[in-house]
Formats: sequence, structure tokens, C-alpha cells
Amino acid sequence: MCAIVGIADHKEASNLTYLGLHALQHRGQEGAGIVSTDGEQVFAHRRRGLVQDVFGNGSLARLKGSAAIGHTRYSTTGSSNIANLGPLMMKSSLGWVSLAHNGNLVDGEKWTRKLEAEGAIFQSTNDTEVIIHLMARSGEKDLEAALIKALKQVEGAFSIIAMNADKMVVVRDPRGFRPLLMGDLDGSTVFASEDTAFDLIGAKTVREVRPGEMITVSLRNHGAPESSFPFAPKEKAQCVFEYVYFSRPDSTVFGSNVHEVRKELGRKLAKEQPAPDAHLVIPVPDSGVPAAIGFAEGAKIPFDMGIIRSHYVGRTFIEPQQSIRDFGVKLKLNPVRSAIQGKNIVVVDDSLVRGTTTRKLVKHLRDAGANKVHIRISSPPITHSCFYGIDTPTRKELIASTHSTEYIREYIGADSLGYLSEQGLMETASAMSGRGFCDACFTGKYPTALN
Amino acid sequence: MCAIVGIADHKEASNLTYLGLHALQHRGQEGAGIVSTDGEQVFAHRRRGLVQDVFGNGSLARLKGSAAIGHTRYSTTGSSNIANLGPLMMKSSLGWVSLAHNGNLVDGEKWTRKLEAEGAIFQSTNDTEVIIHLMARSGEKDLEAALIKALKQVEGAFSIIAMNADKMVVVRDPRGFRPLLMGDLDGSTVFASEDTAFDLIGAKTVREVRPGEMITVSLRNHGAPESSFPFAPKEKAQCVFEYVYFSRPDSTVFGSNVHEVRKELGRKLAKEQPAPDAHLVIPVPDSGVPAAIGFAEGAKIPFDMGIIRSHYVGRTFIEPQQSIRDFGVKLKLNPVRSAIQGKNIVVVDDSLVRGTTTRKLVKHLRDAGANKVHIRISSPPITHSCFYGIDTPTRKELIASTHSTEYIREYIGADSLGYLSEQGLMETASAMSGRGFCDACFTGKYPTALN
Amino acid sequence: MCAIVGIADHKEASNLTYLGLHALQHRGQEGAGIVSTDGEQVFAHRRRGLVQDVFGNGSLARLKGSAAIGHTRYSTTGSSNIANLGPLMMKSSLGWVSLAHNGNLVDGEKWTRKLEAEGAIFQSTNDTEVIIHLMARSGEKDLEAALIKALKQVEGAFSIIAMNADKMVVVRDPRGFRPLLMGDLDGSTVFASEDTAFDLIGAKTVREVRPGEMITVSLRNHGAPESSFPFAPKEKAQCVFEYVYFSRPDSTVFGSNVHEVRKELGRKLAKEQPAPDAHLVIPVPDSGVPAAIGFAEGAKIPFDMGIIRSHYVGRTFIEPQQSIRDFGVKLKLNPVRSAIQGKNIVVVDDSLVRGTTTRKLVKHLRDAGANKVHIRISSPPITHSCFYGIDTPTRKELIASTHSTEYIREYIGADSLGYLSEQGLMETASAMSGRGFCDACFTGKYPTALN
Amino acid sequence: MCAIVGIADHKEASNLTYLGLHALQHRGQEGAGIVSTDGEQVFAHRRRGLVQDVFGNGSLARLKGSAAIGHTRYSTTGSSNIANLGPLMMKSSLGWVSLAHNGNLVDGEKWTRKLEAEGAIFQSTNDTEVIIHLMARSGEKDLEAALIKALKQVEGAFSIIAMNADKMVVVRDPRGFRPLLMGDLDGSTVFASEDTAFDLIGAKTVREVRPGEMITVSLRNHGAPESSFPFAPKEKAQCVFEYVYFSRPDSTVFGSNVHEVRKELGRKLAKEQPAPDAHLVIPVPDSGVPAAIGFAEGAKIPFDMGIIRSHYVGRTFIEPQQSIRDFGVKLKLNPVRSAIQGKNIVVVDDSLVRGTTTRKLVKHLRDAGANKVHIRISSPPITHSCFYGIDTPTRKELIASTHSTEYIREYIGADSLGYLSEQGLMETASAMSGRGFCDACFTGKYPTALN
Repeated sequence: MCAIVGIADHKEASNLTYLGLHALQHRGQEGAGIVSTDGEQVFAHRRRGLVQDVFGNGSLARLKGSAAIGHTRYSTTGSSNIANLGPLMMKSSLGWVSLAHNGNLVDGEKWTRKLEAEGAIFQSTNDTEVIIHLMARSGEKDLEAALIKALKQVEGAFSIIAMNADKMVVVRDPRGFRPLLMGDLDGSTVFASEDTAFDLIGAKTVREVRPGEMITVSLRNHGAPESSFPFAPKEKAQCVFEYVYFSRPDSTVFGSNVHEVRKELGRKLAKEQPAPDAHLVIPVPDSGVPAAIGFAEGAKIPFDMGIIRSHYVGRTFIEPQQSIRDFGVKLKLNPVRSAIQGKNIVVVDDSLVRGTTTRKLVKHLRDAGANKVHIRISSPPITHSCFYGIDTPTRKELIASTHSTEYIREYIGADSLGYLSEQGLMETASAMSGRGFCDACFTGKYPTALN
Repeated sequence: MCAIVGIADHKEASNLTYLGLHALQHRGQEGAGIVSTDGEQVFAHRRRGLVQDVFGNGSLARLKGSAAIGHTRYSTTGSSNIANLGPLMMKSSLGWVSLAHNGNLVDGEKWTRKLEAEGAIFQSTNDTEVIIHLMARSGEKDLEAALIKALKQVEGAFSIIAMNADKMVVVRDPRGFRPLLMGDLDGSTVFASEDTAFDLIGAKTVREVRPGEMITVSLRNHGAPESSFPFAPKEKAQCVFEYVYFSRPDSTVFGSNVHEVRKELGRKLAKEQPAPDAHLVIPVPDSGVPAAIGFAEGAKIPFDMGIIRSHYVGRTFIEPQQSIRDFGVKLKLNPVRSAIQGKNIVVVDDSLVRGTTTRKLVKHLRDAGANKVHIRISSPPITHSCFYGIDTPTRKELIASTHSTEYIREYIGADSLGYLSEQGLMETASAMSGRGFCDACFTGKYPTALN
Repeated sequence: MCAIVGIADHKEASNLTYLGLHALQHRGQEGAGIVSTDGEQVFAHRRRGLVQDVFGNGSLARLKGSAAIGHTRYSTTGSSNIANLGPLMMKSSLGWVSLAHNGNLVDGEKWTRKLEAEGAIFQSTNDTEVIIHLMARSGEKDLEAALIKALKQVEGAFSIIAMNADKMVVVRDPRGFRPLLMGDLDGSTVFASEDTAFDLIGAKTVREVRPGEMITVSLRNHGAPESSFPFAPKEKAQCVFEYVYFSRPDSTVFGSNVHEVRKELGRKLAKEQPAPDAHLVIPVPDSGVPAAIGFAEGAKIPFDMGIIRSHYVGRTFIEPQQSIRDFGVKLKLNPVRSAIQGKNIVVVDDSLVRGTTTRKLVKHLRDAGANKVHIRISSPPITHSCFYGIDTPTRKELIASTHSTEYIREYIGADSLGYLSEQGLMETASAMSGRGFCDACFTGKYPTALN
Repeated sequence: MCAIVGIADHKEASNLTYLGLHALQHRGQEGAGIVSTDGEQVFAHRRRGLVQDVFGNGSLARLKGSAAIGHTRYSTTGSSNIANLGPLMMKSSLGWVSLAHNGNLVDGEKWTRKLEAEGAIFQSTNDTEVIIHLMARSGEKDLEAALIKALKQVEGAFSIIAMNADKMVVVRDPRGFRPLLMGDLDGSTVFASEDTAFDLIGAKTVREVRPGEMITVSLRNHGAPESSFPFAPKEKAQCVFEYVYFSRPDSTVFGSNVHEVRKELGRKLAKEQPAPDAHLVIPVPDSGVPAAIGFAEGAKIPFDMGIIRSHYVGRTFIEPQQSIRDFGVKLKLNPVRSAIQGKNIVVVDDSLVRGTTTRKLVKHLRDAGANKVHIRISSPPITHSCFYGIDTPTRKELIASTHSTEYIREYIGADSLGYLSEQGLMETASAMSGRGFCDACFTGKYPTALN
């Protein structure tokens, strides 16, 4: 998963892009990059690490100019290559172009083989590179024309911010898999994957970039953003997992506030999967908090923070070796003994992927004195991998793809395990944000061919 | 403020000490250190930075031996000197001794001048150095005797873990200002400032080290810890601010679980300072969460996470310069617009020190659409500085030491501002943990002479 | 300038490549990289910095496999881009190929424009990328065939070591601008820019790779290296500046030992440009030492180390600011006052590029008490830029391209200034190593078209 | 070994101290430090590493004020403790004092025990700490008085620069073991271990600080340095090893230029230990160069640089593991095959300590084709450890302390081995610099009791 940010026409473009990436850090912690331009030269800085670590040592000051785009990247398999970090840069007959991409192509591999057969060289294992090859080969001399021609040839999810010395161009694929919003900062046009980036920099949300829409902002004259719809319309397939887990709770994406959607999922879950003997509802923090609040409200059971999350756990943790075991989950999540002792508790989490963490957590909760432990998940069982940008593991690793709920319950050691139904999830999302969601990870019904 | 950890007689002493310090990171983020011994040599590693950053590059493997003590340090004024990092080490007629100290002496400066007049050399600005000088000058050849003789001469707060090649000795001052607990890990004796350190390493809490108690563990033979009470008894003066703010919510200190105490403070606050027109209770996360839950329960007003805290904000944040202003609070705390829009909200925080952060937060909440903003603080106005180890600012900077509540309300821009009464705080603490608390920061009634 | 190293079929391939690069560090200090393969996977590590700094933190251990190629890069204009560091990597229809290149193409820019027009994307400003594009577009499926087809299309200097999972292929351009040698290490074939790399790893020099030769070593079976001459023969144009300055004195390149050639240049210089009133010959260390020894021998004037070079001067020198000036040259080169005081001295250096350093040096020598200062340069005036891989400045910055020797003498403040004649240089090189040298930097007679 | 530098009353005091330490880096590469003062506050920066690495990241700018003292430290046994890095700092009844010390006390350990018995605490294993304890306990309120009282009690070698907010005080022990010079930079008084530090910063040498002399420079008013001789005079015992190896060749210490002394030692060696069948004299660079030039001159045998030293070999070299052996010496010293092939060579080095490096070097020279290898050492056999500041190994490791010259010759594999006689060394030193040298490392005749 990734976050993208673009700032057109602001004298602090790179600083603002940096802040925007910081606000969207949850979408990608492997590395980050910013490319900026002053209309003549282009400046780039990309590194592995967290946003605040990447842009140290005066690197922001070297990213000159009044336009900038940024990208944070989430680690995916086989990709610890610095060449994979965005925004990608290319020099071609189009001049230099930089491109930040959130989403995944389903035909990336097919195109890679085809382009290689035609003499293309690949530096990364990133399917964004397919897009820039197609642009370079488009024969077009104009950034928008090249982007349109390239993107019409591929299938999949793309929210893109592209930039050259003259303009910033954003595009969202016709199904609208990934969010992308347009904002306004004192007259400058800004773009970001989630609007919390706007909150931080003091910009106002204008609207979502619409599925299939292309918006161009000239960097040469201070004209208004120009919108067009160059692609054939498709049925909307917005990623429901953005609501379930991925987006920040304080963001508004696909038209609804994420926190509110999650609370409603919790209320629904309380109806579908009640736990009548429970004394207490506790979330798995932080992502389970809104659904737990909703569940507690729906079930009329008291809510408490019975698990404390340590926020000092970062990427650089050194694992002491040898005999010490199983402290990994406890390092991050520690039960509040006094709150749960002797009680029947409902533990609410947003999703259950492999089951290993939940299993350890249940053990710690029982060690801390919980009587019954009811696990409630505010989304359906994840049975299929995502090919549109969420880094779900392979099907084999998804415990729900091959095992029954009863088996999983026994594996994690809970007294009961209840998932929100697929229908419950989609009803809630549709009721709050209108129709048009992709729930392929829960159903296997992929909205595109998969190649 | 600081955390201290000691592991006697465990083959992974340094690894466990490291994990213990990690669990207590909230008590000190400026730097950390571990000293270990194999009974012959002594090994030390101290650095500025977070625990996980300090012990990289194989430093843990170099901290050999089956006994170790550790220390994390909170930044205090004028102290960015590496010589101030603990545990302190000295070589003297006692051989080498290492000492980790949580707390502050009130007569540190007086002793420094006196010792200097007698020819002593100081390396740090740390009052712990007074203690090791007094030990070196005690004429005693035994670690415990030297510690007792030294500590009988000073006044103030000290929870101490000392170690030489032969033994580990812990002491808690007779008033018991700072917490210190003893645990057991498969037969090894362990010590820590809070018992969440025990949770992480899988140790069981045995009991608190009592005010005025000294406990010795031999590192040479596997005997039981030996307890004694070498100091004249004093009236207990446990730091109530540990309950209000400092300790982790999942810790049990001074005999009660911190989360439970905080919830109860919230309930009491709801009674003392109701907000009848409020639609919603929201905490300032993370520290305000338990009191807000208690307030909501007491006031029977719905609870919600109306402010989201970003946990990517750390020490290394690079502030972009020039024109961007006021993003500091927003970087960390962002309102959930949809949750608070048009509503009268009660915002619960644990304490109010200078008022500047709360002022910005109120502004952001109003910008996000809150109708009325009622600020409720689950502790009394802070009017006096602490001399026992909490890094409160000078009185001049404490807004409540020189201004009325009404003035502060206006300054922060709230519709109403209500503090928990001093009586309410002490009643709650006493009801839950027995009598004997220091509340000098709220009252100015210091339990010791100030020098 | 750059150094390249290749180790085929040795279980410590990466370690040996690292040592080889270390021995050739003088050819490129901007950055270094190694690519290795175990026949299935490919491993790469490239970074800016000195060889010993680049390969820290276990990076060598991660460069697995029994074949490896390495590259060190010298900083050239506009190239502080990590994408410019070698060996370059590409994934294309040829599979992955890695390529280390010493030399420069004269038609790199022309080809870049042409390839971009055909849809190619460029990541670096490095003309090596032209070669890999031509290989990817060759339509050939075989590494050698692709290399031959690509290299037949370009003009310029290339000593190349290429590698894929199956074979290591080295090529030297038909004019043989840059050196490249083949060695043998206990039956394994090794390649390097200079044979001091072989000295260090204990390999024996087999012979030079000949101008226009391609040598292939299979990585799949332990066959002998296979030689071919796929290019149309050209007149040899070995870089005489390798003798004058670039190569290590203990290396044997183009068939002669560099130290011996330099001493002979010094003897010749003594004949051409005597300094009859001199009491002492002193070198500008280290590069001027052999010529100074030769000059002293030829002129029968005593030799002494009258200037001491500090070897602590590296890349990371922090320049203290403000009022301190002109310490730059002195930091590196300090006169031995007692040796030169009151004497007429001949100062021998290998070349004179801009004149600024020599000017400061002459001043320091006079300040230290030298009576007369005669500057002797063991090469002719540099009047033209090199387009074959030596990083000479532009003509404008070459003091001899626009100024007379008398002007330069006055500018540097010497009592006399004498260069070796172009004829003297070429006679010496030819006498020692046979005919066929490029001396374009002294004459402007470029052996290729320049595009 | 160490270097010390002091700059009194110059607005760029820290910058100049930094440059001075850089020039004296050869005297200590383990770590460095600078302490400066603006007359009110004191600023310190000490770190392990080379001078240019220690003072990065703006640390020089933080060392404010117009007076500064600096120290570089050479690694000695058991001392990888940052507390050992100079200049030492203390806060005591004297206020703060900082002290940079070159030399070693012979009674350091005795004093440490005595002071510990009196209640002193030690932080380092550095005998400089004894001096500051004695100062703190002197009862004196004045820096000079405290220094004099302290230094009268100890025995050994000390060249010291001390500083507090009011004055800079330098002292040299009455025997004058270690060099120390006073210079003048545009009216500011400066001090340094060797006068090459003055060359670099543009200062002029005024004179040596005399054995037993104390010089005080007020930092409050711009008065002239004041000299006194507070100690009972002793027979001079200047370290002859400064001439043999330690000082920079371009330095003038003890009244003579080091390079000239070394050349003369070479001439004398040629007379004492001729090598009549030799074709060539080659130095072991860099330290053997002047003696080799002198030997060649004395013996009338041609001189050549037959061994090339790589200057990229630093502290951070990563040794590749496993099967590669013996490249350590070759990495640094590589024979010039063509220069020595088939020849009888005299290899001149300054000293021979353990013999292991020379042994490997002889092997490499033979591998490179040398016929006979005659080793000549421009100093006598080292048979005793130094207790005055040179880090000679223990006697057991000194090959000449337990083995005959013939045994050593055989061990290193040379055709002949000749040392300069002790008489020859002392005659030369005395002839050039007057009487009064310590040659205990060659004779065991220590000029002081050893404790």
C-alpha cells in the first residue's frame, strides 16, 4: 500500500508534501520520496525508512521549487530494492517525468514480459515501471496524452500523481479502487490519498477525484485545475478494506468518515454476533477502537481500554536472542490485569489475517485473568488475496481461506469467535457511502480479469 | 523522570534488562544505559536516544554476565550531557559500583558544594553523583553499609538499584516517593519501577519494595533476597502524579492499578464538574482515555474517540521552516470532524500544565465544527514545581500558579473548564491505595524541607 | 575514471572483488558497488563512499555466490546520483545482466536522444546506460551476441566486465583506451583494471585483455576462458595519462611498470628542462615521487622529501568557516622547512591542470625559506579535455589551453617552469611499451570522431 | 601517545584547535576532543574516531568562545572507554577546569589506590584523572597553584594545557619528556605538541616550552604570557623516540627538524651497517623514507620507492572472512616488482617492534623477485617498554627483548639485519639537538623511579 501527495504552485511545496506524507505514514512505512521542480530543474530524494527519518540532513531544503509530489511505500514481497521507491523518475522523449502511484496493476507481469521482448529495460520490480515504459513508447509528446494512452492499455488499480516541468496531472482508475482527494490551500491546488493530509497542512478538501477522472494543473500559469474523463466508464469498485482497516479513522474517503463507518460496523457486529454473557467490550488498539465503541453501544455492554498498546515499538527493535520467547505481541499489546480479571470479555478487532497474533493475545488475556474471551471481528473472514494494492498474504497464509470459523476459534483459543457477515459489511458501506465497493478479499469476486 | 530495572542471576540478564527498559520507555526518552557483570568484569553501554536505538549494533551481546541493571533518563534542564546518563559508574575504594537512581535529592546542590569544598570532582550535573561521592567517602568497605551511610545523609526521593561484582542492592527512600517493585522470573529476582516490565519478560510480581526498605541479592550464591529497614521511618509520601499521569495505565503501582485509578478520577470529575449540555465525552489520547471513560460512565454521556493521535511523531521530527505554522499539535492530535460536528463536547485530559497545547487543541476542535467545548481535567490545578523527580516546569511557567481558572478558561478558549478538586484526588487515591501520598505540586505542601 | 574487477568461479568471489576494488580505490572514490550471483539469484550492493565504507554492516556476506563483478566510480560533473553507480543492473529479455564499465562513449548523448525517441527510459546520466539499452534492443538472446551488437554501434572507450547467471564476459574496445588485465587465482579466472588488484588477492597476471578482444568465462562449467575478436581492428590508442598520473606506480599496464615509466619521464625531463642552479630535487608527493627520483638521477642533483603529505586528509574534512583561509593545500602538503631553507629547489610534479594548487604550494615553499623554486612537470601542457574517461576539466579551466608557459610561470610564482615535451613523453612511452598511445589531452588529436 | 593544542584569545579558537589537532592526528587516532570557553560558559565535544569524523554535524559551531584546548588520544590497552578521551573536565571547588595531557605518570596506579582510600571516585583508567583529583584536593583556589601542588606530588611525563574561564596554563615536566611549543598567531598565544600544527594555522613558532616551565595566558586581559619555573630542576630526558618514529618529519621538536635527524640516522646507519652488495636502497614508507634517503646518500647506493603504500587503509577496514589470508600487510605495502626484480635491496625502516610485519614484507619482496633482502633499522633494538607515554607493547612482545639479532634475522627471513647502535643514535641526537635524551626503550635505563 502507498500514499501519494501533490502540491502545485506553493512556495513551500516540498515542506507541505513532507507534512502530507507524514500524515499518511500509516499507508507505507518502508520508504518515502519527494520529487520537486522549480520549472527548470528537477530535484529528488528517496530513501528507505520512516518519513521523518528519510528527510533529514537538509534534504528538504534541497528539494526546491513550487511544485512537488511525494510517495510513501509499504513493504511488499521481494521488494527491498531502493529502485522500487517512489516517486519514480524517468528521462525519455517526454523529457523528465516523475510519477507517484497508489494501487496495483493486475497485468503488470504480462506487460513486463511484453515490453522486455520489445527491448525495454527494467530497474525495479514495481509495476509502476510498466506505466512509465508505456508512456515513453506512446509516441505522444504531451504528458496527459502519454498518460492516457499508457493507462488505457493496462488493467488494475491506479491513483496517480504525475509531474513534469510544466504540469501536474492526477488520474484515478475508472473503478476508483484507491481514494484520491483534491484540496485547496490558499488558492494552491493540492492532492492526497486521504484528507487528513489536508487537515495537517491547513488545506480544505474540495472533493474526491472521481473514478476515471484526470485533473491537470498547469505549473506555468495560475489557471484553475482542468478536469476530463478520458477512460471508458466502469462500474465503481472502491476498496472496502480502506474502511475496515487501511485509512486513518479521522479521514473521509469515498464520501464517509472512516471512524463513523467503523463504529457502525461495530454496532452491526453486535447485532449479528452478540455475546450475551460478556461484562466488558475491549478493543485491540488502535485499529479496533471505533468498532469496539460501536459494539459496546450496540450491545449495551461497558467499554474499556483493557489492552494497552506501546507506541515505542518501531522498525528498529533489536530482538534479544536465545531463550526469551513470545514477548513480541506483549511488547506491543499488554492487558490491563485489573480491568479484565475474572470477567467475560468481548475483544473487538478489525480483521483477522493469519491468526497468530490473536492466538498469542488470547493467551496473554487468559494469563491476565480473563474468564471468557469472545473474539469479534468487524469484517468477514479474509479468504482471497488482493491484487489492487493491499498487501494481503497469499491465500495459503490466510487462515480463513482454508479453515472453518470453528477451527480458527479453537486455534486462537477463544471461547467464541464471530465475524461480521459479508452482507453486513456491504450494507453498512453502501448505506453510508453509496454503492460500488470491491470486497474481493472476502468473496473472491474480483471486479477485473486477473490475467 | 527515570525508570530503573535490575536482573540478578539470569543468564540473559542484559537482554531482559533491555526488554524491561523498553516497557518503561515512557518514563525516560532522553537516553538509556545498561551495566552488567559476570562476577569479574563489568560491562557498560550508555547512549542518548530511545531504548531500541541505544542498544543496536551488537551492544547487548557485549553486555555479558548474569546480572545487569538499567536506567532510562528523561531530559531535564541543562542536562544534555552524556555524563548524566545512568546507570552511573564509579571506581573507588569500594571497587567498581554501578548505580541506577529514580528520584531527586532536595539537598543535592548543597551537598555538591560541600563535597567540592572537600576536594571532590564532579563529572555530571546529576544529583546521583552526590550519592556515589558520599559512598566513596563513607569509609565503609561494604556496598550496603556505604549505601546506608550515604543515603542517611541526604534528603529527597530515591528508588535505587546498585550493583557491584558481588551483589545487587535496592533501596527505596523512607517516604516511598517513587515506585519500585520486586518480581520473580523462574527463581531469579528482578526489580523494576513498574510491573509492566515484569509482564513483558514473563516475571511475576512478588511485592513492592517498601518505603525505607533495602533488599540485597547475592550474585555469588543463589540465596534468597534479604530485606532490612536501615532508615528511620517517615510518613509515606507516594507521588500521586504517578497515578495522574506518569505511570503506564497497565501498571500496578502503590498497590493499585493505574488505569482503574484514572477511571475513578474520571467518575469523580463527572460528579464534581458536570457538563449537562454535552452530547459526547472525548479523551485527549492516550493519557486522557481512562479518565474520559470514567467521566462518560459517571455522567452517562456517550464516549467516543473524537481525537486521533498519530504515533509516528517522535524525537526526530524535522520541522519544515518558513511560513508553515501551528501544525505541531495537529501533527500529533487530529479531530474526527464527523464525530464532533455541531456537538457540545467534553474533552477530558489528565492535567493542564502551561495551557498552550490545550489552547491549540480547542481551536482545532472548533475549526472541525464542535459547538461547545468543555475542558475537564482529572487532576487539580498544578501550582508548584516538583523537587522529587517529576520534571514540572518552574512555577512561572505553570499557568495555574499565577492565574485563575476563569482566566485559563478564557486563555484556552473553552466554554467551560473544570478541574478535579484536590480533595477529590486524594480521596480517590486513598480509597484505592491507602493513605500516604505527596500532592505538593497541587498544594505546595512539600513533605520534606527543601534544603 | 573508474576501476572494474571480476572474479569468476571462486567461493569467495565477493570478498575478493572487494579487495580488488580496495586496491584500485585511486581510480574512483565517489562510490562503489559489487554484483554477485550464485547461478540462480543475483545480489547487489552499491553506495556512495569509499570502498571500505561502502561494504560495511554485513553487506559482503549478503553478496553470495561464486561469481562477482565490481566497480568504483570517480565523481564527474552532475553525477551525484546514486543511479549512476556501477555495476549497472538491468532486467530485460536477456534476463538480468550486470555490467561494469571503465571508459566513456563519445556518442553517448547522440544515442541517448535516439533511444529516447524510440521510447527508451533513462534512469542515470551515465553513458553505460546507452550500452545496456542497445543490448536490450539487440534482439539477441545471448549475452555475448547482445554485447557485440551493442558495442559495434557505439564509438569511444570501453573496458567492460558483464555478467549474467551463466557467464562472465569481458571486452576491451578495439583501440584499447583503458587497461584491463586477466589473471589466475588457483585456477579461477579474474579480471581487473590494474594488476595491483591481483597482487593483493594473490592472483597471477596471465596477460592483458587485448584491444578489441572479448573473453568469456562460463559460470556453469569450469572451462577455460574463450577469446574472440568480434570488432573491426583499429589503430591502438592507449591512454598515455595512465602512465603520467592515473595508474598506481606498482601496476603494470600496457606492458610496462608505471613506476619505471615515470622515473624515465623524470630522467627525460631533466635532460629537456635542466635546472643547473638547483641544490635539491623534491617531489610533490605522492604522484610526483618517481619522476622526481628520475629527475634527480638524470640531473645528478640530490633528492629529498622536502614536502610532507598528510594522509589523514579525506573526503569528510569539515572546513572551519569564517576567517581562516588558504589552509587547504597546507593541510595536505607541508614543506620541510629545514630541508629547503635557503636552497634553490626543483619541485617535480606529474601534471599541471588549473595551476591553483601549484600556486599555493610555491607560496608555502617560499614562506618556508626556499630561495629559487623551479617547477618541473613530467608531462606536456594539458590543452584539451579527455572524452575517453579521464575527468579533465573543460578547456576553459585548463590553464595551458589558453595561456603561455611564461604566463603560467608567473601565475604560479615560480622562478622557472618546465614541461616535458610531447615528443619526449611519446618517445618514452613508445620506447618502453611499444607504439599506440592516445595523447589527445596534450595535442587535441583525438583518435575518434567526437560527435 | 597523544597530541595537545591550545589557542588563547582568538575569535576562531575552536576552528584553529581543530586544525591543529588535524595536523597532529598521527599522535593519536583513537579519539579527539575540544573544550572551549567564552569566559562564562564552557563547551565540550569528545568522541572516538579520527579528528575529521569527530567534529562533524555542526559540533565546531557549538564550541563557542575565544579560548580552546584540544586533545587527540592514541589507543592504549583496556582503554576503549569514552571517559578516557581528553581533554578531561572537572567541576570542583576550583570551578570547572579542563585539562589536556600528553605523557604518562609512572606512579599513576599508586596514586589511584591512595586517592580511592581517601574517598575519591574514578571515572576513567586514565592517569590524567590522578592529576585533577590532586588539584581538587590541593586546597588551592587558583588554577596555577593547584596545578603546581598536584604536579609536585607525581612522577612521570607531562606536557599539559589546562584551562578555566580565566586563564590557560601550560606546563612541561622538569625532564621534558614530551615536546610542547609556544607560537604566536597575529598576537594570540598558541600551544601545540609539534610545530606543524602552527604551520597549518599560519602561526609562528616562538619557542619550546622549557622543561619544568609553566606559562600562563590570561583570558581576561590581553597581557603577555607569563613564565615561571615552579619545579625543582631535573636532568633533561627528552624522548629520543620522537625523533626515531613518533613526530612528523616536517616538525621541529627539541630544537631540530625531525626529517633532518632521521636522514642523519640513515647516514650513520649506512656507516655502521653497510650492505656492500646492494643495488638499491628502498624505504618502508612513509616512516622509513628519510632514513632511507640518508642511507642511500651515505652508502652511495641508488634510492628508489620500491614499496608503495596505500593510503586508503584506515580504521574501518572490513576484513573479509574465511580463506583469504595474509593480505593485511599487502593491503598497505605493495612491492614494485619491476624496481626490485633480481636485485639485492636494502630495506630501511625506522624501528622493529614485534617483527611480524617485517616478516610478511620480506616474504612479499622475495615473491616479487628481490634477490637479497637486507633489512636496516635506523634505531637500536627495542628491549624495554616505555612508561612515559609511548605505547610500546609489554617486554614479552618486544622481539628484541628476548631474542638475538641473528634469531630475529632468521625469523623475518632477511639475508642480513642491521640496527643502528645505541651509541650511534645518541651521538646523532646530541650532535643535532644537544644532550639530554631518554633512551630507556633501547637500554632499560629509566630516568625516573618506576614507582
